[in-house]
Amino acid sequence: MAAIDFYFDFSSPYGYFAAMRIEKLAAKYEREVRWHPVLLGAIFKTTGGMPLTTIPVKGEYAMYDIVRTARFHDIPYEQPQQFPLSTQIAARAMMVVQQMHGSAKAVKFAKAVYRAYFVRGFNIADPAVIAQIATEQGIDPDVLAEEINSERIKVQLKVDVAQALARGVFGSPFFIVDSESFWGFDRFEQMEVFLRDGII
Amino acid sequence: MAAIDFYFDFSSPYGYFAAMRIEKLAAKYEREVRWHPVLLGAIFKTTGGMPLTTIPVKGEYAMYDIVRTARFHDIPYEQPQQFPLSTQIAARAMMVVQQMHGSAKAVKFAKAVYRAYFVRGFNIADPAVIAQIATEQGIDPDVLAEEINSERIKVQLKVDVAQALARGVFGSPFFIVDSESFWGFDRFEQMEVFLRDGII
Repeated sequence: MAAIDFYFDFSSPYGYFAAMRIEKLAAKYEREVRWHPVLLGAIFKTTGGMPLTTIPVKGEYAMYDIVRTARFHDIPYEQPQQFPLSTQIAARAMMVVQQMHGSAKAVKFAKAVYRAYFVRGFNIADPAVIAQIATEQGIDPDVLAEEINSERIKVQLKVDVAQALARGVFGSPFFIVDSESFWGFDRFEQMEVFLRDGII
Repeated sequence: MAAIDFYFDFSSPYGYFAAMRIEKLAAKYEREVRWHPVLLGAIFKTTGGMPLTTIPVKGEYAMYDIVRTARFHDIPYEQPQQFPLSTQIAARAMMVVQQMHGSAKAVKFAKAVYRAYFVRGFNIADPAVIAQIATEQGIDPDVLAEEINSERIKVQLKVDVAQALARGVFGSPFFIVDSESFWGFDRFEQMEVFLRDGII
């Protein structure tokens, strides 16, 4: 089955919105979704980007737009206290879950991490929070913690982020469908036309 | 009649798309549109913004997205050679047309400037091009040129841009409907719900 590559950062609200909607869109067009957690902090070193909400004037609007967009799409959202935050541990955790338990469980875990951050208000940069989410998902938190801190996983995430950047990924959410790239939750409409017609 | 405040820069492709669509949306909800040409260059000095297409990685995507979005919405678009460019003269020209000939003619003039740049490939930073557009619109180009260079109009544009920034305008297109702000051609859908329901 052809795939949709879905790139996201765990501290990206629009990435969270996309995560809540992409599986349904993909299923409609018989696509699988390959989930790629990335680190915007690392990507911004190349692109000169800044966390959206830290930009003068634009940042204030963005905070408002995030809440309004969640409401518009009927997606639960509570602005987290710690925002944005480091998502290395969350990203590595998802990679480990994928390797140990497969893609379906990893996607379920990723959604649980997003909800923990953007609905339940947990600090997902805290290893204890990641361990708690893992436990709730029936994943051994001790094995997970050990793997998260392994050199192998750290290196692999760096490679994954570099590969994403090489494919043109500069923000979250970012989608690549066949050779077509789409940035932003705002591009679902255009992406759907491409999925349907194979051309846009 | 209640208004929609529409802020745009004449070198903004998404501003051009919005300019081609906003009157129809406004008419549907019996709103008038107040057109405010602004200078993103001046605004970016406060916000630290950069012309979209000059940002590494993101810029290349943006160039592609602009063309694809024009096609998606069936709006004629030819990527200009000079891009982006200074829009002070175009903005001042629109202000002069508004003062001398009223809003309807100014809006017609603004659309002609946008089409000259994004369809006909003219360099709208060139006073001779602005003079040609004016002539095509039945506006005396000599009177216009004189007013464009008047201290009064220069100061007024600076004031207008400062006021826009004070209202939170940081990009193009930007809309303020009653107390609700919307940034981007992507927000027409949400703006329409607000126009229809008075709440979003």
